Amino acid sequence: MVFVAKSASAAEWRVVAKAISTLVEEASFEASAEGISFRAMDPSHVALIDLFWPNSAFEKYECDKQFRFTVRVADFAKLLSRADPKDSVEVSSREEGKLTIKFSNSYTREFSINLLESPTQPTPLPKITFNAKVMLTGETLQDILSDISTISDHVTIETSKERVTFTGRSEQGTASATLDRKSPEILELTLNQSEPAKATYSIEYLLNITKAAGSQQQPVILEYSTKMPLRLEFKLGDQGGKIGFYLAPRVEEK
Amino acid sequence: MVFVAKSASAAEWRVVAKAISTLVEEASFEASAEGISFRAMDPSHVALIDLFWPNSAFEKYECDKQFRFTVRVADFAKLLSRADPKDSVEVSSREEGKLTIKFSNSYTREFSINLLESPTQPTPLPKITFNAKVMLTGETLQDILSDISTISDHVTIETSKERVTFTGRSEQGTASATLDRKSPEILELTLNQSEPAKATYSIEYLLNITKAAGSQQQPVILEYSTKMPLRLEFKLGDQGGKIGFYLAPRVEEK
Amino acid sequence: MVFVAKSASAAEWRVVAKAISTLVEEASFEASAEGISFRAMDPSHVALIDLFWPNSAFEKYECDKQFRFTVRVADFAKLLSRADPKDSVEVSSREEGKLTIKFSNSYTREFSINLLESPTQPTPLPKITFNAKVMLTGETLQDILSDISTISDHVTIETSKERVTFTGRSEQGTASATLDRKSPEILELTLNQSEPAKATYSIEYLLNITKAAGSQQQPVILEYSTKMPLRLEFKLGDQGGKIGFYLAPRVEEK
Repeated sequence: MVFVAKSASAAEWRVVAKAISTLVEEASFEASAEGISFRAMDPSHVALIDLFWPNSAFEKYECDKQFRFTVRVADFAKLLSRADPKDSVEVSSREEGKLTIKFSNSYTREFSINLLESPTQPTPLPKITFNAKVMLTGETLQDILSDISTISDHVTIETSKERVTFTGRSEQGTASATLDRKSPEILELTLNQSEPAKATYSIEYLLNITKAAGSQQQPVILEYSTKMPLRLEFKLGDQGGKIGFYLAPRVEEK
Repeated sequence: MVFVAKSASAAEWRVVAKAISTLVEEASFEASAEGISFRAMDPSHVALIDLFWPNSAFEKYECDKQFRFTVRVADFAKLLSRADPKDSVEVSSREEGKLTIKFSNSYTREFSINLLESPTQPTPLPKITFNAKVMLTGETLQDILSDISTISDHVTIETSKERVTFTGRSEQGTASATLDRKSPEILELTLNQSEPAKATYSIEYLLNITKAAGSQQQPVILEYSTKMPLRLEFKLGDQGGKIGFYLAPRVEEK
Repeated sequence: MVFVAKSASAAEWRVVAKAISTLVEEASFEASAEGISFRAMDPSHVALIDLFWPNSAFEKYECDKQFRFTVRVADFAKLLSRADPKDSVEVSSREEGKLTIKFSNSYTREFSINLLESPTQPTPLPKITFNAKVMLTGETLQDILSDISTISDHVTIETSKERVTFTGRSEQGTASATLDRKSPEILELTLNQSEPAKATYSIEYLLNITKAAGSQQQPVILEYSTKMPLRLEFKLGDQGGKIGFYLAPRVEEK
């Protein structure tokens, strides 16, 4: 078995590890000839990450047979954090049960980690259609969620054909951000029904994944339907990689 | 009732909240046609803040009848910290028991917080005359107090017609800073008695308020008399706003 | 008795205090006409610091008779941290049991600390010869040790005539960095025996002293022999001062 994925830097691997660490402690990646994918739910089954990273995103990519590798996310992230910006990064496996991470520059540092046992059950993807779609930058989404989180631990998103409003409520008061369809922050706003779409979600999940996966200036796609799950989509690099994030609505919407 | 105070940024509101937070957890502001004022002692009645912020300091100011609003300082500061440097800030109240904080830029974020019950007893201002007056920048005062605090938790200030000396003592040793009247750090030094003025104060109070209210390059006025309270005066913006801080002397001066 | 050591800044005193603080809580310096020296082992007798700072390293140096001064390292470091970059620093003692630290700029801050009782037993220096010598910058050494520390708490150093390899192992996996003699990071590599030199040391000690005493771009000399103590030598300033660090090998080398 040969698996080799070489990148010009550790930046994208770090985003991947950080995004995954918001949901699970152990991560099972699936490598195939097409690229690397990852899918898992958090322990409470409220959120799901669905990541795909095509072979074209790598400087060099080789995978002669489908193979699964499971790592402790915190340990993996710690190793990746040791890469210098100028280091190229090669993640490879040539031996059963081992993963090698190699940083190369004027000298070479090599980490060989023992893989964990991979779980067998695959995670199915929810089949949902979305009625509302809003596109805005990672920075704007993070700002709005941080604002609301000063008052509340959940956010209600209401999208009409004219605007989207994010609102949080608690005993302390109310926080809201309103963005008109024409505001420069709104890159796209689509609603394929006449009445507004309205649903409430946990802020913590949304804020964590947006901080982890959202690049400041890159667009994030937010899709949802009234009282139904929400989906965020973040770009992973510029070669077709993406991180999808699904979140169940809060039931106790008042 | 209408109360509206609009500023070009949240900077001064933040200084106000930070300064007040050094003394109390709940803050009662008094808004009148003239501006916003605040006065309170800390729970141990050792220190007092007396703040006045004139209507001229605001881009827009409206207050059709005197009104008191009480907030939890930490919550209020947390909201203010969410403002971007380029956001304009409007603090307003149009409804009994509610205060609205609005940040505007290309889109609008609005926080509506439930006000706390306002205490009824007013805080009287101590009537004191001061024999010594020293003016120096916030940066210099903070440096000196930080120096002394490495050795001691109280500082003795001794002002003669020629110099001012700050001294702290503990089992560990002695720390002192001496500034001659002619040193560039001394912007003014006045003593209206022949013998030196000498008194001792808690460093913690002085350091906290200086960090919170003192701008690096803005002058701070320090006034006191032998074994009597001290007063610091910080400028709040450039339109006549000011933060006065009174501190009782330590009795156990050795 | 007069002891006066004046420097243009507190930078080197800070390095000294930081380096010493990695091993002991109380430090006994020995001042003589030649300069200031310090030697002590850590409480577990695994590591030793041997520091010498010649009189030529100071702007002004005076010591009319040999004298020992003992300080609590954390307190001493805290005082030194109060110096501004532009402050000149004078450390002096003119009175039994007192040490004075004076920062001068446009005004003067003076700290007088009570010295601790000095221990009487001198620390002998180990007499060892080293078979391997590697010279590299403080930055490179720190990077390598930090890399290895993500996996292991000890590091095995193996030096051949061609390269030096740093390796750490744990249940988690293996980390290694390999530097060829010709790599730009290797400023010197000498081995005066035919077989490679190989020994294992605690990373924590090495990393702490390298962070404390190693300047980013200054060369560090690393010397050791198979299963014998290691010695690091850091430059202290540019006037002949140096910090030597000895570390016993780990016995349980596998």
